[in-house]
Amino acid sequence: MTRSITILGATGSIGASTLDLIRQDRDAWDVRALTANCSAKKLAALAVEFGADMAVVGDATCLADLREALSGTSIRAEGGAQALCEAAALGADVTVAAIVGCAGLAPVMAAVEQGKTLALANKEALVSAGDILMDAVAKHGATLLPTDSEHNAIFQCLDGGELSDIRWITLTASGGPFREWSHEQLAQAKREQALKHPNWDMGAKITIDSATMMNKGLEFIEAWHLFPVGLDRLRIVVHPQSVIHSMVEYRDGSTLAQLGPPDMRVPIASCLAWPGRMDTNCKPLDLPTIGQLTFFEPDEDRFPATKLAREAVHAGGAAPAVLNAANEVAVSAFLDGQITFTQISALVARTLDQQLPPPPASLAEVLGVDGEARRRAIELL
Amino acid sequence: MTRSITILGATGSIGASTLDLIRQDRDAWDVRALTANCSAKKLAALAVEFGADMAVVGDATCLADLREALSGTSIRAEGGAQALCEAAALGADVTVAAIVGCAGLAPVMAAVEQGKTLALANKEALVSAGDILMDAVAKHGATLLPTDSEHNAIFQCLDGGELSDIRWITLTASGGPFREWSHEQLAQAKREQALKHPNWDMGAKITIDSATMMNKGLEFIEAWHLFPVGLDRLRIVVHPQSVIHSMVEYRDGSTLAQLGPPDMRVPIASCLAWPGRMDTNCKPLDLPTIGQLTFFEPDEDRFPATKLAREAVHAGGAAPAVLNAANEVAVSAFLDGQITFTQISALVARTLDQQLPPPPASLAEVLGVDGEARRRAIELL
Repeated sequence: MTRSITILGATGSIGASTLDLIRQDRDAWDVRALTANCSAKKLAALAVEFGADMAVVGDATCLADLREALSGTSIRAEGGAQALCEAAALGADVTVAAIVGCAGLAPVMAAVEQGKTLALANKEALVSAGDILMDAVAKHGATLLPTDSEHNAIFQCLDGGELSDIRWITLTASGGPFREWSHEQLAQAKREQALKHPNWDMGAKITIDSATMMNKGLEFIEAWHLFPVGLDRLRIVVHPQSVIHSMVEYRDGSTLAQLGPPDMRVPIASCLAWPGRMDTNCKPLDLPTIGQLTFFEPDEDRFPATKLAREAVHAGGAAPAVLNAANEVAVSAFLDGQITFTQISALVARTLDQQLPPPPASLAEVLGVDGEARRRAIELL
Repeated sequence: MTRSITILGATGSIGASTLDLIRQDRDAWDVRALTANCSAKKLAALAVEFGADMAVVGDATCLADLREALSGTSIRAEGGAQALCEAAALGADVTVAAIVGCAGLAPVMAAVEQGKTLALANKEALVSAGDILMDAVAKHGATLLPTDSEHNAIFQCLDGGELSDIRWITLTASGGPFREWSHEQLAQAKREQALKHPNWDMGAKITIDSATMMNKGLEFIEAWHLFPVGLDRLRIVVHPQSVIHSMVEYRDGSTLAQLGPPDMRVPIASCLAWPGRMDTNCKPLDLPTIGQLTFFEPDEDRFPATKLAREAVHAGGAAPAVLNAANEVAVSAFLDGQITFTQISALVARTLDQQLPPPPASLAEVLGVDGEARRRAIELL
């Protein structure tokens, strides 16, 4: 059975992994729309390869390039934020939402409103607008499938299970490159050192987030929305090998865990084929060769980011959006050499310590909270 | 909703764990029949405590004691093999089959014929009579739930999944107390050393089976029947901590694993509540305290039992029943000081090397194969 698919953020790493899977089984998919921020040529080439109906660049200034690259084809080319939402609202059976940042919020919501399946890779949708998003998912009867490896792991472990049967959800964290560093060493950590992630090859922002463990903090907030078992049933365990992606412990004492290689095609394939399975050519798991898996309690003295995330969930309302915005400012400042590594979490904490804005009730209000929090964090720099 | 339950082998460890779980939620269960081999007083006390309709001793010479212990109650007391089958055929919603050895075969089959749910803990039913049992399960539409921790783990990891989606099923093995012993040390292994299992507290026979790894060989045969993915998709990994009870790797590269404490109440609770969950008071899994999980390839030079089991599955027909019978004789002989530790597997191999009887087509023929294989193994001693 052919299913239709739209990929928001087709030229990024999630988009590339998704298209790689579609390429394996081309006849199973009817590609409706592909979007990018500005990579017009790359987007046009993909749109042609996959016979998309529509190609959209979020940055309208890139539309001329896109139109040129698609001239002579029947593929519709559009540009700008509204066109992204139009692509998301095409009503594809599956929409993969992989636009990075708050620019992804409106398209995510447009996809949710179609009541179809949304494979969600945009962190901000849950971190900054989690209450609004989850309400919309319920209202429109959409199926929300998390593509993040940790949340997808939990989703797989939960398969069909009841939240009320859960004793614990455990998010695993690699602990990042500085896992064994002292306070003193962390204060001296260099940009280049922070950019070396032990297990995953990712962008700069998320790699720094992994080093501070804010990445796990943000995932904690996402998990709290996706799997509402309550703060006291959600925990983080440091697992440097990142082989176990996350776990669910049931009230009978059974724990289900999902394991796999550090390859995003695995969780994406799980979303694309859900509730079935599809082939990927990922290597089989070879535990005897891996040899050992180790586990540690997180040290929130050295890595306060997960504590800040938990406090933001507890505070509720605008707090998670403020945390996310302040963290983006702080990570940028660290990458630009303006602040030290340990000042990243400190800046987030100080931004959260200020008077919080009222809980946002719409995406526009979320964007307002985000912008205001960025301004405050920049002031505090 | 109250469900009815019959426990075949109520005074053994599986029976005790099952009754412990029922005790926690007494009103949810209507206990129909409890059986034992000969522990008449213990059985009578349990039958009274749980208000059973019927109590059966398999050994008819113990019936007088049972009748005496139950005098003045309305509980029906019976004895002998036929009465065990009668108890199994009461048509309880759930029948727990925990009779040890070939004595359990006929009652298991009687329960299967009711087309209800069977929680299976009797190894011989699958090892020696697997083809016959699985045919009967299909014919009568019974639901077969494995209570063994490894098979229950696989069952949970498979939950709703298709066998055709499986790339690998991995049974984990502790490796037993002699995991790091050399050939020379194994040849000298003493009874008392073999009886010390690192993780589970079990009976003598199964503890020796764990030391030779024949326990894993028998489980391999069971898994082959329960989850017919083929010999080339079923493997064993040594995992000394026994925290991961088994794993299923899907064709997309996702591996689901079930983890838990070494407590049989966990898999039994999974069977009793399936497809839901029930509480147990087992300790939560604490991976940071456990610290590390390690994995090794099995060494079939030092521990040939799993190789013998795989060969028996490959040979098919009577071979698994012969392997099981020869192993029982060999383990008894080792416990009696008649043969050395390494001679256990050697005796099994030599018994399997003889001309195999024709494939058994009925339980009576399975018992015939079993008896004949025992005679041959004893001759070879």
